[in-house]
Amino acid sequence: MRRTARRIVLKSRPRGLPTPDNFEIQTVEVPAIGEGEILVRNEYLGLAPSSRIRMSEIGSETSYDQPTPIGGVIHGQSLGRVVQSRHPGYREGEQVVLNAGGWQEMSVSDGALAVHVDDTKAKATLWLGALGVSGLTAYAGLFGVGDLRPDDTVAVSAASGAVGAMAGQIAKVKGCRVIGIAGGADKCRYIGQELGFDAAVDYRAPDYEAALRTACSGGVDLFFDNVGGKIRADMLGYMNNFGRIVVCGMIAEYNSLASSTGPSWLPILTRRLTVRGFLMRDHMHLHEAFVSDVSRWIGEGRITPREDIVEGFENTPAAFIRMLSGGNFGKTIVRL
Amino acid sequence: MRRTARRIVLKSRPRGLPTPDNFEIQTVEVPAIGEGEILVRNEYLGLAPSSRIRMSEIGSETSYDQPTPIGGVIHGQSLGRVVQSRHPGYREGEQVVLNAGGWQEMSVSDGALAVHVDDTKAKATLWLGALGVSGLTAYAGLFGVGDLRPDDTVAVSAASGAVGAMAGQIAKVKGCRVIGIAGGADKCRYIGQELGFDAAVDYRAPDYEAALRTACSGGVDLFFDNVGGKIRADMLGYMNNFGRIVVCGMIAEYNSLASSTGPSWLPILTRRLTVRGFLMRDHMHLHEAFVSDVSRWIGEGRITPREDIVEGFENTPAAFIRMLSGGNFGKTIVRL
Repeated sequence: MRRTARRIVLKSRPRGLPTPDNFEIQTVEVPAIGEGEILVRNEYLGLAPSSRIRMSEIGSETSYDQPTPIGGVIHGQSLGRVVQSRHPGYREGEQVVLNAGGWQEMSVSDGALAVHVDDTKAKATLWLGALGVSGLTAYAGLFGVGDLRPDDTVAVSAASGAVGAMAGQIAKVKGCRVIGIAGGADKCRYIGQELGFDAAVDYRAPDYEAALRTACSGGVDLFFDNVGGKIRADMLGYMNNFGRIVVCGMIAEYNSLASSTGPSWLPILTRRLTVRGFLMRDHMHLHEAFVSDVSRWIGEGRITPREDIVEGFENTPAAFIRMLSGGNFGKTIVRL
Repeated sequence: MRRTARRIVLKSRPRGLPTPDNFEIQTVEVPAIGEGEILVRNEYLGLAPSSRIRMSEIGSETSYDQPTPIGGVIHGQSLGRVVQSRHPGYREGEQVVLNAGGWQEMSVSDGALAVHVDDTKAKATLWLGALGVSGLTAYAGLFGVGDLRPDDTVAVSAASGAVGAMAGQIAKVKGCRVIGIAGGADKCRYIGQELGFDAAVDYRAPDYEAALRTACSGGVDLFFDNVGGKIRADMLGYMNNFGRIVVCGMIAEYNSLASSTGPSWLPILTRRLTVRGFLMRDHMHLHEAFVSDVSRWIGEGRITPREDIVEGFENTPAAFIRMLSGGNFGKTIVRL
């Protein structure tokens, strides 16, 4: 077994969009594990925008998780193989997803945030995305928070992203009309033609405002908000009375959290909207139903997960920065 | 029966705080009523901040009611006596509250938004306030929208106002800890000492920030927001995880609706808050329970309504402007 492993730590807190300088790759000794722990050799890292929140100090001010300390390993999911186990629930050689594996080649876990990977149901990397945190986030947001109904018109921002594409596809499976908002013609073609969303609005196109107005002319019942910022403010203008907004993420604002503001709440009042923020971790009771439903829908070809795989551990920071800039296309995964 | 009556119409749309110039008093002929209608001689007008929304053109953009047209009678509640009835549900001589009576001496109604006044339960003017729209708004916000629980810590803004004082007192009846926020030492003494709120924070005091921090040190579960603006932004910082915000009004922003912005939604996400806007009209199914509960609590001395009565129809605009500036103290009522 290897004695040393690489890990990526926070060297300095980013201001705005992170730069490679904010990260440092270190080589450290692989720690000995204690009773009740497992040692996992990571094969993949699953990147998620929410890791950006912890890179700022604002985290602690908002009851969120503690910020990643300077010198601390960057928070994130990993998929790997158990190479040593002193935990009765995990045997050596099996594959697991660690929700808090971190950006490192070797992770120690007490099993609390570990998920067994069942690759008879779907290929292993899907357990980082469509069958992992991204999929469960979409599923929990729609059913646990958003009270999805078959006759809803649903709008999804970052609609080609890991969570957005799942949310839109699940809503389509349920019979909803789905409007996707994404950046660029390729992504809009993807969500419109490959995923079958009813409308695809390119927020980078010159006719964005008009296209959004047309797509939302019948009003929106449920807005699955992954982005915040201007798109959220625009969407408030199209919500039907008694509409629901599920606040899943605010990627447009993570780089400037301290100074960010929001839209006027007037439509919340006059249209009697319900706005609910949520974190996936509070909805783990849905996990079993989620895996059952989504693995079946994938098998039936009704949901098509898309992965954006980057090669090489050392390219993790660059892949993360690209994702925050909207350069990814599907779930961003690093193969170590 | 009188042949002419005065009414107050919108002469021009206010920019910012309304001025007397925005209103005009006209004398018009009393109209003949049709089948199914009643004619009411108004004795009192009940003023409410929400009338300000309709004075701007923004109303129609936000699915709210149509704006008051230039030359149209200002929207508002009235309490009066039926002087002529061609409606089987109302007899001449009885007192009624008209939810859309308008700022005028004589109103015609089809009875749809009329409420019979039962002055054996409480004196008539209370049917404009504590037992009328203000009280029902508070009741609906707490029970129909905010899911009030006895162990909640509840914060109320504009806490000495018609709705706020009712919301805080009802929450006290239910056993909650109640934090009131109001402007000025007199109002804070009133909510703290006379109404028995557990904490009273004066947002005009130099130590406001520190006082709010102290009052909210245990976190807030339910925030009943009548004000919007800076107080709402501040309160977001004190919400407990899974807290609820009931958006009842935004008086701080009504004078500048077109340009108003809101706070960052980050706490909504990280603290998993639920923010719900509501209008009283959607909760009329609570009316019977509301009248029964609140008239009993008033009778038991557990709720003390406070009225701010202004004499003279012609003083209605000035009373309204004063209310929007926070100069009122309790339900603002004009005696004609």
